[in-house]
Amino acid sequence: MSHANHPIGCGCGIDVHAHVVPENFPRYIGSKVPADWPSMAPAQACHRHVMISGKVYRTVSDACWSTPRRLQDLPGMGLALQVVSPMPELLSYWMAPADAQQLLRYTNDIMAAMVQEGGGRLAALGAVPLQDLDLAIAELEYVVKTLGFAGVEIGSNVLGVPVGAPQLDPFFEACESLGAAVFVHALRPAGMERLVGPPALQQVLGYPGDVGLAAASAITSNLVLRRPRLRIAFSHGGGTLASLLPRLQQGWDVFPALKESISLSPAEQARRLFYDTLVFDAPLLRHLVDRFGASQLMAGTDYPFNFHDRTPVARIEAAGFDADTAAALVHRNAERFLGLKTTKETHP
Amino acid sequence: MSHANHPIGCGCGIDVHAHVVPENFPRYIGSKVPADWPSMAPAQACHRHVMISGKVYRTVSDACWSTPRRLQDLPGMGLALQVVSPMPELLSYWMAPADAQQLLRYTNDIMAAMVQEGGGRLAALGAVPLQDLDLAIAELEYVVKTLGFAGVEIGSNVLGVPVGAPQLDPFFEACESLGAAVFVHALRPAGMERLVGPPALQQVLGYPGDVGLAAASAITSNLVLRRPRLRIAFSHGGGTLASLLPRLQQGWDVFPALKESISLSPAEQARRLFYDTLVFDAPLLRHLVDRFGASQLMAGTDYPFNFHDRTPVARIEAAGFDADTAAALVHRNAERFLGLKTTKETHP
Repeated sequence: MSHANHPIGCGCGIDVHAHVVPENFPRYIGSKVPADWPSMAPAQACHRHVMISGKVYRTVSDACWSTPRRLQDLPGMGLALQVVSPMPELLSYWMAPADAQQLLRYTNDIMAAMVQEGGGRLAALGAVPLQDLDLAIAELEYVVKTLGFAGVEIGSNVLGVPVGAPQLDPFFEACESLGAAVFVHALRPAGMERLVGPPALQQVLGYPGDVGLAAASAITSNLVLRRPRLRIAFSHGGGTLASLLPRLQQGWDVFPALKESISLSPAEQARRLFYDTLVFDAPLLRHLVDRFGASQLMAGTDYPFNFHDRTPVARIEAAGFDADTAAALVHRNAERFLGLKTTKETHP
Repeated sequence: MSHANHPIGCGCGIDVHAHVVPENFPRYIGSKVPADWPSMAPAQACHRHVMISGKVYRTVSDACWSTPRRLQDLPGMGLALQVVSPMPELLSYWMAPADAQQLLRYTNDIMAAMVQEGGGRLAALGAVPLQDLDLAIAELEYVVKTLGFAGVEIGSNVLGVPVGAPQLDPFFEACESLGAAVFVHALRPAGMERLVGPPALQQVLGYPGDVGLAAASAITSNLVLRRPRLRIAFSHGGGTLASLLPRLQQGWDVFPALKESISLSPAEQARRLFYDTLVFDAPLLRHLVDRFGASQLMAGTDYPFNFHDRTPVARIEAAGFDADTAAALVHRNAERFLGLKTTKETHP
């Protein structure tokens, strides 16, 4: 048990996976409003419809923008700190770069105001227009240096290009050199044509598949070896990575082309990535801790969307881990991922 | 411990996942040979190149077609019975239906000859041209009634259409009424554009993702409720399903549209599907047994391809299961899946 541990039930949890939707979207500055520029429409009490391309994209509650409401909800979830990032669809990689930059700058500034209002109980991961690396790196510098954010949220793919693709390397180089944490969130997933059922299956089944492939692409492209100081995390417990990893490990042993291109065993590389705990299931969470290491998982909730984990800390505490592992998952790993200063740094 | 159990190390294993490639492909009967009609080209000793569309699709060893060679290898793997099915790329859903039927009929007849030569140590799962339901059902009847096969191998998708899609229901109705076992194998997977690395990643990462989505589609479309007597299995341990399932279960609890369309909880439906054990990893195998049930997993190897499990039975026996569970995985579940007569039927 390290000195930096808090007692179980301390309310000291850190949630690295929570979202923001601004109360209003800005008026577009330019000659022609892009068709997919978001706007808000009235909905039931305390709710608004996010309108994109003339349709309701999602109906969200005021917990998406109201800092007091959010702060009120934190203690009940056992959280001392919540790290907010934009609703992923707002990442806007499909817009003209300058348009996306305009929307993301607005959203980043909104989040900075929330962090300010949060009085130490909120932190933020900014958004950058990754469809244009120069603009993305400039916005990264803005959110880190000017706004003081811990890092950024990025999509599991950028217009279909996965996280591990070589063309994204300059961005990760900048993240590494700025010490910015990177949280990879599922976005516009592959495999949609394989789903049979209502649209919610995109989030339910498509998201974990895409984030699993994103994490696998980080491994097959040696991202953490190319960028050894990069701190990068994957949403939804790394999605399907846990199911893919043993087969990737075996493939690495069997196929010379894989042995040649992957410089360190997939199993070991996976233990250098971070993941959230958002899997809604104790046996799977225990399996992830065995697979990825007790030092790599961090509480995550998807607050305040309908499909969020209302008991992230209690769930970790009930999963049967020893106290040291539970403390690592509840707050200590997140402190390391976010680069927070703690009273005493521990090296397990 | 049931009476039908054999002692550990008995050499009584059943491998439900092994493949055949014919030594030669037939000459095309018709006016114009399809561009993707397969052929064989010479390779190193005991090997041949499978040529498709003018390129080497895969280089395979004579274990793909030589029954004596195959029978020689079974005892070393702890196997009393191996169930063979075509190399999935031969399923040929992308060919004109009559062309595919011609190729598959040839392959089915080759497998029937192997089963005959195997003297009780080989069984087969046939192939059917699922791009045409009438032809597929006719070929299904041929392999079951005329050739005496236990059932069929099908792809995880048929030209992109997943196993659970309603349009495939007439085929599953026919399987149910004929008592034909269905083995779903990964094929031309979704998500290829998310892979960063050599072509082998299609098998290594793409396959489990596609079979996971296929199994999920069976659940979201209530396949085992629509067809309660259908026996259907998914390759590669169900691929990514184990990672998807808790999130699908939670989504079912949260989204009214999912609760409405999925008639029985995803967790319960998953325990009515079969899976092979081909995951190359003891912790993951134990996790699958916890998740899907000790009655639903069956040894599988991918023999004789490079990327196959050389110790399927020893691996199960070393995974730390109780003797009853090990016996179920080694042979008893496969007997049930295949509809084999056993000396004494057990109902755990």
